[in-house]
Amino acid sequence: MTPKVSDIRDAARRLAGWAVTTPLLESPLLNEKLGGRLLIKAEMFQRTGSFKFRGAFNRLSRIDEADRAGGVVAYSSGNHAQGVAAAAQLLGMAATIFMPDDAPRTKLDNTRSYGAEVIVFDRRSEDRAALAENFAAEKGATLVRPYDDPYVIAGQGTVGLELAAQAADQDARIDAVLVPCGGGGLVSGSALALSEESPDTAVYAVEPEGFDDTVRSLAAGERLSVDADARSFCDALLVQTPGEMTFPLNSRLLAGGFAVDDDSVKAAMAAAFRYFKAVVEPGGAVALAACLNGAFDCRGKTVVAVCSGGNVDAEKFVSALKEAKD
Amino acid sequence: MTPKVSDIRDAARRLAGWAVTTPLLESPLLNEKLGGRLLIKAEMFQRTGSFKFRGAFNRLSRIDEADRAGGVVAYSSGNHAQGVAAAAQLLGMAATIFMPDDAPRTKLDNTRSYGAEVIVFDRRSEDRAALAENFAAEKGATLVRPYDDPYVIAGQGTVGLELAAQAADQDARIDAVLVPCGGGGLVSGSALALSEESPDTAVYAVEPEGFDDTVRSLAAGERLSVDADARSFCDALLVQTPGEMTFPLNSRLLAGGFAVDDDSVKAAMAAAFRYFKAVVEPGGAVALAACLNGAFDCRGKTVVAVCSGGNVDAEKFVSALKEAKD
Repeated sequence: MTPKVSDIRDAARRLAGWAVTTPLLESPLLNEKLGGRLLIKAEMFQRTGSFKFRGAFNRLSRIDEADRAGGVVAYSSGNHAQGVAAAAQLLGMAATIFMPDDAPRTKLDNTRSYGAEVIVFDRRSEDRAALAENFAAEKGATLVRPYDDPYVIAGQGTVGLELAAQAADQDARIDAVLVPCGGGGLVSGSALALSEESPDTAVYAVEPEGFDDTVRSLAAGERLSVDADARSFCDALLVQTPGEMTFPLNSRLLAGGFAVDDDSVKAAMAAAFRYFKAVVEPGGAVALAACLNGAFDCRGKTVVAVCSGGNVDAEKFVSALKEAKD
Repeated sequence: MTPKVSDIRDAARRLAGWAVTTPLLESPLLNEKLGGRLLIKAEMFQRTGSFKFRGAFNRLSRIDEADRAGGVVAYSSGNHAQGVAAAAQLLGMAATIFMPDDAPRTKLDNTRSYGAEVIVFDRRSEDRAALAENFAAEKGATLVRPYDDPYVIAGQGTVGLELAAQAADQDARIDAVLVPCGGGGLVSGSALALSEESPDTAVYAVEPEGFDDTVRSLAAGERLSVDADARSFCDALLVQTPGEMTFPLNSRLLAGGFAVDDDSVKAAMAAAFRYFKAVVEPGGAVALAACLNGAFDCRGKTVVAVCSGGNVDAEKFVSALKEAKD
């Protein structure tokens, strides 16, 4: 089942009172520097520190009464983990999360703080999806996929719905929205919402270099995978293949995509610190990075960069600020 | 003229469309740790990175047409400077700002970026108020005082007005509001607004150790000055004597005050990073610090800590994160 715009509106009603309506922020000083109007949709202020709570809560709220006792299971490098754990806690369900052993400490700690059981695996040798599927089959738990799920996509799509309404309130006619992309749930859902709420707005996916599977797949017109040996500073976006459900949506709805290098991401984190007083994690900063490094030219335009999360360890944040080049 | 609540409502109308309605954020994880409900009023996301824009814009918008050509002059360690400079730029007036030579670089740079002329002085040997008053007399400029001005106090008071409305939207009945205090404009204006909007809410001033002139003066019932040789990490709050106009208001409206040490401020900045994904400058973090270090006990209560600004150099922010004790 492919999600529709009505599913996103439905998710927004489900999330009301639970999710944070995150602000759309701008900096006159940065606008002047860019020669355009750049707004950020600040999902680091979302409950659990990333947009992932939206999709997780929407999905979990649909689990049948009979299946709730079995709990939920998910696999995630950290943001989907926290989203699922917090949603499960709020809805009174047990949660088990498979997380890679190299996930940021703050993500591991917080996931446990929301009451979930965390099972650590080796990202290079084990198949996370298979681990979670086997667990679900054995224990009768509901598997909550990170992006290939219509309720998850619809939940993430509330970001697009919300920012369109906020931009209208601020008299901003948005020319373009740039969205961080791992499996593609956030960008596909947001593009779907914007296709109805703001049909003249161009939506782009932004990925880290080395994990630009969606950018390449969009160009090729088919789902391509990237090299399994790739490395990136952006721990939240280490996905090698576009989603089965998200890619057809992205293929139909997106204007294109960009890949940004680690240095651009560090500069974007430093700019978010300086101009927006906001903590953005590496993967959350890729769309902002594409607006600042020239990959996307903001001059004369009104642009929204979705900043998708802020769950970053202090050590990593400090090193990004120190290494960022102005 | 002492400001009234109607002046704050008037200021709110004047600021609509110019100032940011900053969010009231909370962290379920931090709430659990504290055993209470703690919300932060996030003024670091205000235009110019601090609440000071509110008072400055309200004040400047009242300058008579005939006096506009003379421009404005102010003295400030940085946040009032940026507020006045940005308001002057928006309203098409020239601005001259006297700033201490040890002000944070980001505050000096930004003030110039808003088009103001910055004149640097030595904080230990020169009288900032006299410098600005002489300049105003010579050049026919309007002096914009940092707190002893009814329009400035009314502008800052919109913080209290706004947070009362936002708390009501979130079904939060606020037991207490803690507010950073330098000269006392923000806390007196906010307390005035809350005295009508939320009369059962206790309002407290929070100051850095060594600059606890308002706390001591409240206890003594008269305006006392602190030692001129005091030092503090909180560059925004280095005021030695309560304001002439703000102290009578604070004396009548506040439930009390607290002073916090530098280590507590660093811990609060680290907590804002971790739990709220927000960059708070030292002086902006004192109210949050009083909630976290136990000076004010949040257990079983609903409390708002106003975080008044986020203009901090990267080096200082990094050192606070590194030195913070959990």
